[in-house]
Amino acid sequence: MWLPGYHKWMPKFALLALVLSLSAGPAWPAGTGGHAAEIVNVLLGVVVVLLAAKLGGEVTERMGQPAVLGELAAGMLLGNLDLLAGITILEPLKTNSGLMLMAEIGVILLLFEVGLDSNMHELFKVGGSAMLVAVIGVAAPMGLGYATSAMFLPQAGWWVHLFAGATLAATSVGISARVMQDLGKTHTKEARIILGAAVVDDVLGLIILAVVTGMVTSMGASGSAKIEFGPVVLIIGKSVAFLVGAIIIGRRVHLNALRVAKYFKVHGLPLALAICYCFALSALAGVLGLAPIVGAFAAGLVLEESDYEVFLRRGHPPVGTLIKPIATVFVPMFFVFMGLRVDLRAFGSWSVLGFAAALSLVAIAGKQVCSLGVTERGLNRLAVGVGMIPRGEVGLIFTGMASSLLVSGKPVFDMGTVSAMVVMVMLTTVMTPPLLKKVFEREPAAVA
Amino acid sequence: MWLPGYHKWMPKFALLALVLSLSAGPAWPAGTGGHAAEIVNVLLGVVVVLLAAKLGGEVTERMGQPAVLGELAAGMLLGNLDLLAGITILEPLKTNSGLMLMAEIGVILLLFEVGLDSNMHELFKVGGSAMLVAVIGVAAPMGLGYATSAMFLPQAGWWVHLFAGATLAATSVGISARVMQDLGKTHTKEARIILGAAVVDDVLGLIILAVVTGMVTSMGASGSAKIEFGPVVLIIGKSVAFLVGAIIIGRRVHLNALRVAKYFKVHGLPLALAICYCFALSALAGVLGLAPIVGAFAAGLVLEESDYEVFLRRGHPPVGTLIKPIATVFVPMFFVFMGLRVDLRAFGSWSVLGFAAALSLVAIAGKQVCSLGVTERGLNRLAVGVGMIPRGEVGLIFTGMASSLLVSGKPVFDMGTVSAMVVMVMLTTVMTPPLLKKVFEREPAAVA
Repeated sequence: MWLPGYHKWMPKFALLALVLSLSAGPAWPAGTGGHAAEIVNVLLGVVVVLLAAKLGGEVTERMGQPAVLGELAAGMLLGNLDLLAGITILEPLKTNSGLMLMAEIGVILLLFEVGLDSNMHELFKVGGSAMLVAVIGVAAPMGLGYATSAMFLPQAGWWVHLFAGATLAATSVGISARVMQDLGKTHTKEARIILGAAVVDDVLGLIILAVVTGMVTSMGASGSAKIEFGPVVLIIGKSVAFLVGAIIIGRRVHLNALRVAKYFKVHGLPLALAICYCFALSALAGVLGLAPIVGAFAAGLVLEESDYEVFLRRGHPPVGTLIKPIATVFVPMFFVFMGLRVDLRAFGSWSVLGFAAALSLVAIAGKQVCSLGVTERGLNRLAVGVGMIPRGEVGLIFTGMASSLLVSGKPVFDMGTVSAMVVMVMLTTVMTPPLLKKVFEREPAAVA
Repeated sequence: MWLPGYHKWMPKFALLALVLSLSAGPAWPAGTGGHAAEIVNVLLGVVVVLLAAKLGGEVTERMGQPAVLGELAAGMLLGNLDLLAGITILEPLKTNSGLMLMAEIGVILLLFEVGLDSNMHELFKVGGSAMLVAVIGVAAPMGLGYATSAMFLPQAGWWVHLFAGATLAATSVGISARVMQDLGKTHTKEARIILGAAVVDDVLGLIILAVVTGMVTSMGASGSAKIEFGPVVLIIGKSVAFLVGAIIIGRRVHLNALRVAKYFKVHGLPLALAICYCFALSALAGVLGLAPIVGAFAAGLVLEESDYEVFLRRGHPPVGTLIKPIATVFVPMFFVFMGLRVDLRAFGSWSVLGFAAALSLVAIAGKQVCSLGVTERGLNRLAVGVGMIPRGEVGLIFTGMASSLLVSGKPVFDMGTVSAMVVMVMLTTVMTPPLLKKVFEREPAAVA
């Protein structure tokens, strides 16, 4: 090949050739169609999702509920138009990877914002409570979940009950974080306890999943389960290293970057650095198997507006102010997308609904127990308990894992259990916004 | 199936199962790896691209050049690390669809911002010049390109020369728009002429491609080319309908939406509406075969800050102010990405370089002729001519098309011509920022 540069362009040409060969009409619209169709779909998807978010948010805000509830509901409506009205035009939205990416960036930015609103010192002040709340909030639902599963599925093995318990353990903090932001409560001690506990929860979830899948996998061959400590210790080590690293090393790297950056004159540097810091820690969390939002929260926690003082003095707006409009566009996309993927047909079977109802009750009750872990006096314990209710992605990951792990040739979760878990995730997600608003209104929270 | 909801979750489970089956170690890190790896790659990609953009921008700004040149150069450096230093770790960046999407959103937001800075009334004042500039700026490079191709490739058929001419015709306005923004020149008459001409250019490019490919395709069977008027008229009709529709109907829809929106109280509505309007028009342009950025520019042109007066009076910041931080993050990604895809190996062959140099000279000269179309007195004609120099995506689309269209079993563009065209696109892109800065400095532009 005398032209080594040529092969780089091949995929584009191949695509164009394909599109061309498929089209009989004039070449241009079809020729650009292949390239443009993807972008066009994402752009239209953003339009639909954003408009739905704002309409839904307006309706629930007028009902005195947080906007996020309306965003979820709008998503559920759009996602089930096929079922409700036979309209299938929006079905491709659910699997559009571009929209999915923007939604995930949305929740990362949300936790970054929430982290920016908190600071480490204040989080450490409630650290003991957060730790206790997390541990109780994992142990209680696990025990109760095991019992419920044993009651509803008496013929199933212990590994099924163990997985059911584990699925109920992990809190998904996105919803609560957003509701507290909608209500202007991110500065309260209760909010800090919920967020701190959620971070610990995520680490505990990681450990539990490693232990449980390790036990089930080891059983496959020998028939008896054993716990391998190596991988468990590794995961604990990585998680702790990440959190400590994010706080100590991450802060030092960030401050050093700013020390260099202050000699720079290029436009938009502080915002770019903040975004890079947030995304880098989110990615690092993801690499270690933690949820990327744990990294985003840690990044927000570590970053202080005062770090950017030299830029503020030059008339640069605070980073938090600049993040807001970006979050305004991306965050609602996450919650509409969450609603979009709720399949109302999961509510169609009575036996599933019964099991789901029991699991949801247990999921809620288990997290209420954890409010006992709040050691401070005069706090709104109910708010902490309610803030820990929502299960989300992590629950779905556990469910997915359990439905693909085989014991004696059968998946740990059969289809009925999978559907019940999915319904439980939906219910705990949708009920949290109104409940959390109510408990914050009934009893004032303690401003930290 | 007694559980109709189940199949919705299957792809996720299938993915998890696949990842699980591929991993021998503990389940969690691998299990989430499949899901998280994609996000992690995008997040890390954003970090690399943004940091490169800011570093590159700082270097060129210190050299007295626009930041966009540094972003392009940083991208070229990153994209050729394999060639320059044997480092291949960044190669996947080039094909990361998530980053590509963010880059495309970046250029859409850039043209939206530039459109916001202009307004229709002022554009119409230079409408005659813009039209003339566009027509001359398409005709001259086409003629010169045909001649150059005939000189360098004497054995090739007329269709090759025709395609070569067509490839030189269309302006890619992103670079010039950004340079003028960097220089604070978007309010000048020169900027309006360049932007107006670029819109007309895009429509003309569409028509030319339809005519040329129609001719070449019709020749395949009969040996003699004929021009079909049906598809050409259709394309002209669609383009004109889009531009008129965007301006008249689009504006009415937008104003009516705002009339409803003022009764809404939900947070972030004006920004969401502006983004939706921009994305909807961009998508519509894409559907019609125009570049999405033409739609984004039209959206910005039609939208006036005063439309949002009722929100401004409520203390809501202007939409332009809110778009800025979003653009700060996304726009540089587009230009770094553009640089990233430049393969320096295309410069490796002398015969290609000779042809490329001739094509580039012709591409530049052809667009200088078009400054004769500026009818107003006292304008900086050189700035208009230079602003029209960059060829970009459209040139690459033409090249791609020509390399996949067969005449007597041979592609219209062979590999040498393809590479020469690619080099021409690179050169015109990279030379515009410093040139445009120079001509704007030498002679002051007329503020509209």
